[in-house]
Amino acid sequence: MSQKPDFMEPCELEIVIRPPLKLASLQAHPERTIVVVNGIPVGGPEVVVMAGPCAVENEDQIMSTARAVKAGGGKILRGGAYKPRTSPYSFQGLKEEGLKLLAQAREETGLPVVTEVMDARHLDLVSRYADILQVGSRNMQNFTLLEEVGNCRMPVVLKRGMSATIEELLQAAEYVMKGGNHQIILCERGIRTFETSTRNTLDLNSVPMLKKHTHLPVIVDPSHGTGHAWMVPALAAAAIAVGADGLLVEVHYKPQEALSDGVQSLTPDNFELMMNALKAVAAAVGRR
Amino acid sequence: MSQKPDFMEPCELEIVIRPPLKLASLQAHPERTIVVVNGIPVGGPEVVVMAGPCAVENEDQIMSTARAVKAGGGKILRGGAYKPRTSPYSFQGLKEEGLKLLAQAREETGLPVVTEVMDARHLDLVSRYADILQVGSRNMQNFTLLEEVGNCRMPVVLKRGMSATIEELLQAAEYVMKGGNHQIILCERGIRTFETSTRNTLDLNSVPMLKKHTHLPVIVDPSHGTGHAWMVPALAAAAIAVGADGLLVEVHYKPQEALSDGVQSLTPDNFELMMNALKAVAAAVGRR
Amino acid sequence: MSQKPDFMEPCELEIVIRPPLKLASLQAHPERTIVVVNGIPVGGPEVVVMAGPCAVENEDQIMSTARAVKAGGGKILRGGAYKPRTSPYSFQGLKEEGLKLLAQAREETGLPVVTEVMDARHLDLVSRYADILQVGSRNMQNFTLLEEVGNCRMPVVLKRGMSATIEELLQAAEYVMKGGNHQIILCERGIRTFETSTRNTLDLNSVPMLKKHTHLPVIVDPSHGTGHAWMVPALAAAAIAVGADGLLVEVHYKPQEALSDGVQSLTPDNFELMMNALKAVAAAVGRR
Amino acid sequence: MSQKPDFMEPCELEIVIRPPLKLASLQAHPERTIVVVNGIPVGGPEVVVMAGPCAVENEDQIMSTARAVKAGGGKILRGGAYKPRTSPYSFQGLKEEGLKLLAQAREETGLPVVTEVMDARHLDLVSRYADILQVGSRNMQNFTLLEEVGNCRMPVVLKRGMSATIEELLQAAEYVMKGGNHQIILCERGIRTFETSTRNTLDLNSVPMLKKHTHLPVIVDPSHGTGHAWMVPALAAAAIAVGADGLLVEVHYKPQEALSDGVQSLTPDNFELMMNALKAVAAAVGRR
Repeated sequence: MSQKPDFMEPCELEIVIRPPLKLASLQAHPERTIVVVNGIPVGGPEVVVMAGPCAVENEDQIMSTARAVKAGGGKILRGGAYKPRTSPYSFQGLKEEGLKLLAQAREETGLPVVTEVMDARHLDLVSRYADILQVGSRNMQNFTLLEEVGNCRMPVVLKRGMSATIEELLQAAEYVMKGGNHQIILCERGIRTFETSTRNTLDLNSVPMLKKHTHLPVIVDPSHGTGHAWMVPALAAAAIAVGADGLLVEVHYKPQEALSDGVQSLTPDNFELMMNALKAVAAAVGRR
Repeated sequence: MSQKPDFMEPCELEIVIRPPLKLASLQAHPERTIVVVNGIPVGGPEVVVMAGPCAVENEDQIMSTARAVKAGGGKILRGGAYKPRTSPYSFQGLKEEGLKLLAQAREETGLPVVTEVMDARHLDLVSRYADILQVGSRNMQNFTLLEEVGNCRMPVVLKRGMSATIEELLQAAEYVMKGGNHQIILCERGIRTFETSTRNTLDLNSVPMLKKHTHLPVIVDPSHGTGHAWMVPALAAAAIAVGADGLLVEVHYKPQEALSDGVQSLTPDNFELMMNALKAVAAAVGRR
Repeated sequence: MSQKPDFMEPCELEIVIRPPLKLASLQAHPERTIVVVNGIPVGGPEVVVMAGPCAVENEDQIMSTARAVKAGGGKILRGGAYKPRTSPYSFQGLKEEGLKLLAQAREETGLPVVTEVMDARHLDLVSRYADILQVGSRNMQNFTLLEEVGNCRMPVVLKRGMSATIEELLQAAEYVMKGGNHQIILCERGIRTFETSTRNTLDLNSVPMLKKHTHLPVIVDPSHGTGHAWMVPALAAAAIAVGADGLLVEVHYKPQEALSDGVQSLTPDNFELMMNALKAVAAAVGRR
Repeated sequence: MSQKPDFMEPCELEIVIRPPLKLASLQAHPERTIVVVNGIPVGGPEVVVMAGPCAVENEDQIMSTARAVKAGGGKILRGGAYKPRTSPYSFQGLKEEGLKLLAQAREETGLPVVTEVMDARHLDLVSRYADILQVGSRNMQNFTLLEEVGNCRMPVVLKRGMSATIEELLQAAEYVMKGGNHQIILCERGIRTFETSTRNTLDLNSVPMLKKHTHLPVIVDPSHGTGHAWMVPALAAAAIAVGADGLLVEVHYKPQEALSDGVQSLTPDNFELMMNALKAVAAAVGRR
């Protein structure tokens, strides 16, 4: 059928000419952005480690894990209260109860909290408890959510979609910035490829490429980027060496009992070992 | 670093054991679902063609195109009022004004309307005008939107995410069905691969694979699946031959002037030529 | 490290300007090539089906299967004597003994034979027995093999590499043609993507795209393109509908006992059912 | 068509059970292999840098570049005499003349030479000049070449195919080892994904994953892994941090005039800057 000339129109290369990045580009804004969270600068000389469980599960779990994160040298506590799960029958998070537990963990440890917002309608609630909002991979092109997050005035971790190009991640950041919120931290967390031995393929190429094109800080999530806890320290070291401004790492006080992502969560002991090992790598590239 | 035994935990294959598909699976529900839209059955012997512009742009455009769709044998009118666009500076759709124009086109032509809902907060509005809700590729794992659409009692076209596996598409359908809405039409629209000469790689393998595992009807979008209008008729024929229950096709009365997706939109004349050619293919596989 | 200006050179878009296709392009040679194999034209109005086992295993197997191919309407017998296998410990083919069995099957059935050549040093031997040489996916960019095949004067099936772009497939054909051998049949056999429920993703977009750019005939292998025998008939129909000039299909007289690719091989009965069903599809697109 | 029960056979998950890795696996051979090239150990505490031009072009180019490699601290000289090129009209290498120039560069600088062998028939010639044979990405599953290289008794750099899984790379190494040649250095050089801003996606996950499963040394090629010279230092640092035993880097004395890969080749000055920066990273992970 394709041979019938009736259907043949002259072939033109489809060139997608997208509007430029007015706000997110380094050219437009040559000074690098430092996002400050409760006094902690992300994007400066210090590599900032955000760590904690995939999901908040109960008081004992989040409090114990938060203490371990603090003890190991983590600066920000991560933990999901609203969880995007592939199956509707999987654990969906504790919702507001989870947010309250995060706030309790912050109160005790002093660690600011990053947690995901999945829906614009939860934004008021989540932003009352969170210090940093997280927009997850599955929502990187949820444009109405990006716009609402752009109307907030609080830091945002924007995770790369699992099949998003680097340019699309920057365009997503532009959506948020257009609303006036310029405190964005970009996060590489692995892309989907043909390789099956790892959960995703961590694309560390993206770190220098993003930094060439934008002034925004860039962090790396080696937990989702590999899917295996035993690989996390090696890829965390690589992320720092390649120029990342921070890490987002899953830690759980009892990974074997985790309701989600246990296989990729570090134990408190291994988190501490990793943090000690990373100091030398950071120093080697002029960071701390 | 990866060589240090300190970091090495016993490696276990990450086996994701997801809850089964209670509602979407063919095993659970061995009778095939037929979704009826204003008297038009999708999933029965007739191949149903949904066609129209990417976005509603103005009255002349949508009315002229709707007439062409009807004249060519299209049964359902597609057109976007809310448009997910990669850049915030691209045309974002006419919103409610666009919905009104779609309703006007339906009134004149009698064609029911399928249009995208991007945000749960637009659901009341969009469902007042639409006959079928569309959940787009970028929202296939916007789980709160899926849940809200599940609370509606109207047909839904659920498009495969650009890097979603077939299993993930079925799990997304399960989210909608869990809310009680069983009128779901799955749509293959191409996946993201390394090939650059086409916009996406249309995965026609997915049609028989989906039909092996689910009772829901499956349609194919060769416009997004190729990105080139001249390729659409050939891939539309292939989609029917492989067993699709319908097509979703972009048609524009003046593709060169389209505000989006012009390169992949058929002219009214080429749409009519295609529709005539498809009749024989449908007959060859026992469809009409 | 990437931030240090010392390492920064002005970034230029890497534009690969490759020499044009002097011989393979449709522009250079506007008349479509028909490759004639023992009187059978490939690239004309008739859709030519090449079928047979993955590997020649023994006399009973190849003779029985060849008879079934002939009975079902297949025009050319496929069968591997030299087998590229991922593990060195898997069955590697019967080599010259396999070629002799293919010749015996040709003698009895009259079907010409297509078989793979994996190494330039086997070319003399293989070309004494084969009617069509096959260059497999793993060798699509084995350029010295392509050059040697270009020095032959016999038809060649050139299979797309599992991660080769359409342009790279055409450049590989150009290598063969540069040596003077213009009897090339291109073969789409699926590409490697993230989808895991099928062995490969059959890229039917490639058929019209190839035909837009080259005068060479194009066939499709739905066996490797899906990895499941039960999917082959549906994708074979789609391949014909999209404009393929032929099919390459795996058939085995006892798939459960096959030494390779049993899961994707049709039984003789299912091959015959498929061939009957395909007649109507071919007719629907003006082919036989 | 796929709905017809006639074609439906019971669906079984296609489980490919491949023969185990008898020789390449760490379990079979728990001591890590160190490949010694002219006294230089690859796989020991020292990170070994192999550097040089993509292709040998002329005496001035290879001699000047070799001196720069030596001056910068490179231990092994790379350079192609036989070049696999996508188009038959691109520069294909100087062949034996190129090998002679490599030998001349070795004589002056003392650097051993790694160079690609594309064809089993060139093996005698290439192995007379080379210290390490390279099997390129496009030949990773050229099984007859792997077997012949397995009959040699000299070190081999085996590069991962651009869409090869980690398991397939290990199976390819097993082919070489089965012939008796155990001196294999595996090389990660980037895989093909949907991302277009970089030439390939460097998969640093593969380094710890390979080291978990094999005793063979693993090096990384950040030049092909990124496609941009300005990115090479950052990814080289990451490769060392993640645990690579060495690097394969393109350096050219005048990248703007290179006949191939100029965009991804470092200048001598930038190579030296990079080498100095890498020392600290190596020290940070307990290497030199």
